[in-house]
Amino acid sequence: MTLHDPEHFRCEISGGIARIAHDRPERKNPFTFESYAALRDWFRALVYSDDIHAVVILPNGGNFSSGGDVHDIIGPLTRMSMKELLTFTRMTGDLVKAMVHCGKPIIAAVEGVCAGAGAIMAMASDIRIAGPDAKVAFLFNRVGLAGCDMGACAMLPRIIGQGRAAELLYTGRTLRAEEGERWGFFNSISTTDALEADALRLAERIVQGPTFANSMTKTMLAQEWNMSLDQAIEAEAQAQAICMQGRDFTRAYKAFVAKSTPIFEGD
Amino acid sequence: MTLHDPEHFRCEISGGIARIAHDRPERKNPFTFESYAALRDWFRALVYSDDIHAVVILPNGGNFSSGGDVHDIIGPLTRMSMKELLTFTRMTGDLVKAMVHCGKPIIAAVEGVCAGAGAIMAMASDIRIAGPDAKVAFLFNRVGLAGCDMGACAMLPRIIGQGRAAELLYTGRTLRAEEGERWGFFNSISTTDALEADALRLAERIVQGPTFANSMTKTMLAQEWNMSLDQAIEAEAQAQAICMQGRDFTRAYKAFVAKSTPIFEGD
Amino acid sequence: MTLHDPEHFRCEISGGIARIAHDRPERKNPFTFESYAALRDWFRALVYSDDIHAVVILPNGGNFSSGGDVHDIIGPLTRMSMKELLTFTRMTGDLVKAMVHCGKPIIAAVEGVCAGAGAIMAMASDIRIAGPDAKVAFLFNRVGLAGCDMGACAMLPRIIGQGRAAELLYTGRTLRAEEGERWGFFNSISTTDALEADALRLAERIVQGPTFANSMTKTMLAQEWNMSLDQAIEAEAQAQAICMQGRDFTRAYKAFVAKSTPIFEGD
Repeated sequence: MTLHDPEHFRCEISGGIARIAHDRPERKNPFTFESYAALRDWFRALVYSDDIHAVVILPNGGNFSSGGDVHDIIGPLTRMSMKELLTFTRMTGDLVKAMVHCGKPIIAAVEGVCAGAGAIMAMASDIRIAGPDAKVAFLFNRVGLAGCDMGACAMLPRIIGQGRAAELLYTGRTLRAEEGERWGFFNSISTTDALEADALRLAERIVQGPTFANSMTKTMLAQEWNMSLDQAIEAEAQAQAICMQGRDFTRAYKAFVAKSTPIFEGD
Repeated sequence: MTLHDPEHFRCEISGGIARIAHDRPERKNPFTFESYAALRDWFRALVYSDDIHAVVILPNGGNFSSGGDVHDIIGPLTRMSMKELLTFTRMTGDLVKAMVHCGKPIIAAVEGVCAGAGAIMAMASDIRIAGPDAKVAFLFNRVGLAGCDMGACAMLPRIIGQGRAAELLYTGRTLRAEEGERWGFFNSISTTDALEADALRLAERIVQGPTFANSMTKTMLAQEWNMSLDQAIEAEAQAQAICMQGRDFTRAYKAFVAKSTPIFEGD
Repeated sequence: MTLHDPEHFRCEISGGIARIAHDRPERKNPFTFESYAALRDWFRALVYSDDIHAVVILPNGGNFSSGGDVHDIIGPLTRMSMKELLTFTRMTGDLVKAMVHCGKPIIAAVEGVCAGAGAIMAMASDIRIAGPDAKVAFLFNRVGLAGCDMGACAMLPRIIGQGRAAELLYTGRTLRAEEGERWGFFNSISTTDALEADALRLAERIVQGPTFANSMTKTMLAQEWNMSLDQAIEAEAQAQAICMQGRDFTRAYKAFVAKSTPIFEGD
């Protein structure tokens, strides 16, 4: 597979930034078995890319994603054996793992419907920007399932707090832009017109930074998830010492001494 | 014991929802040794109930609970041996464990005084709704004790953040409705008149959902508390696969295809 | 060394409260190798002090701290071996560990520049009060380094949530007082004139409480960081049982019975 031309979802790469989007706007961008797998494979391959340093997940046709397609996914799931079901839930979980471990900051630009597995992809991103009509719903329990899907019971409480996460997961209710910003689910709110540009501007800012070091930040945010404080501090002592032998650190120092702006090269 | 007629606290059960409340309104509902044990036993038995699917903890006489009674509990504690003290603190901790592991979502409707062990019961609930006069105080250090009571140092930071939790635990100061909502301790604020009805409406909404799946959500919120992200994602792959073989999942799918509303039966 | 007269930073002790501050206001209070080590040693020795029960970290000359000095620290770091670098990052991490394990609540009064290791010292405090011009920046990636410095990837998400922490760590952008209060980084905002007095008043309130029990609260906030819920509840049952045999608990009970205010003595 090539990172530049995946199947089952849209992808454009330029300036070190991959812009991806689901590709069924006429149906509010549901997942299919194929798009799950394609996204998982793409994020897994992204680890080894040296020309993509950030990912922006964009809405398409005014919607982010409606989650697992009722006809293409939910129907078949109701007829599967346990072995097949576990293969499926592990595949969806593997998409989240691949996002968490891809080594590049991910920004989700969320507009319109963002439900089920779509909400999970937003949650598993590092930073989330809302469009004014963003409607996020962890609606698993509305299709008879549990809120514990693809890591939601672990990740959502760390983003918005345990009480607010519980409410969203037990009710499946919609979280909109303003409330989501107030709760820390969204980092900011853009206008409809500015959403894509704002997400790209943030990605550009991150990509102009020290990309190797940013990758280490991403690694450690996951790595320290359930460490003790003392373990985390030792882990960061090691991780930061690695970055201090990076050339970008010297570049920053020399630029500072020369009263100029550092140009980072990612090594 | 029967779930329907416990001693030492009030309990009414209908429509799959248990409404419980402390039962000493003339003294703002303090705990006694007996009510601690009765609540612990009741939540432990609740695991096996198939006709209660959510719990609402209500105020009584305008107050939620004033915590451990000074005369009935604090006095005796000052005269106990270490062995006896540990038996007591383990019993109070067992109440929280029983609430966490009871398998049914718990909604606390908090009005008036909600202090000490009362604040802990609110904290150990899944969702909290405030009345306008809610006054929550983790006031342990005001009676010479530590903020680390019944799991507060683990749970409160996950609900409102580490810095805000530290302030409440070091000072014992009162958290009121508006600030509590802003911090995520309260999910919402109701008027005095609407508080009970709002809590019950939310409970009804949850109970009309897939109760077996909701129970799995509750299990996983606790289970993943200190897992790594990858472990949590695998744990959810298994938990959700179990729910996908549940009949409520099929019911939801069939209802969707028939363009009707699913009626869940909890299996 | 003496706690009362450290080198490389300011320290005044009275009323059970140590007020400390960086001591190079003309350069916005950068760290040096010496001040890192001196602070680490001071917080380590603090564990054994029986006459200091809270610490207030103050700004000096209108700024909190600008972090590691570019000339004194960053320059030399660019020329070090990996062994030397790891010695350095472990020393800075040891400062955070020493703050976390010192047994006394720490209040940071943050005004003006609060950057890099300065932001870390604020983050590693228990409670933070902002002056109106507080500018907090985890700006590590702006000098070519990773956001994972001195425990930031573990601690910052627990204070302000995972999404907001990621944004600050990937961009190095400035967090100001109002936004910081809204996010829970700051517990409150004071005016410039009132900042020191407000921080001291809060410290006095804490110091007038049961200092042995407060120390146990601090211990457990760190100790339970990555325990399971059940482990945390058992740990608190033990910790609180210890506090229940403390004399301050009896003092509080007797004061209550006598309708007077308890005077705690810290044992």
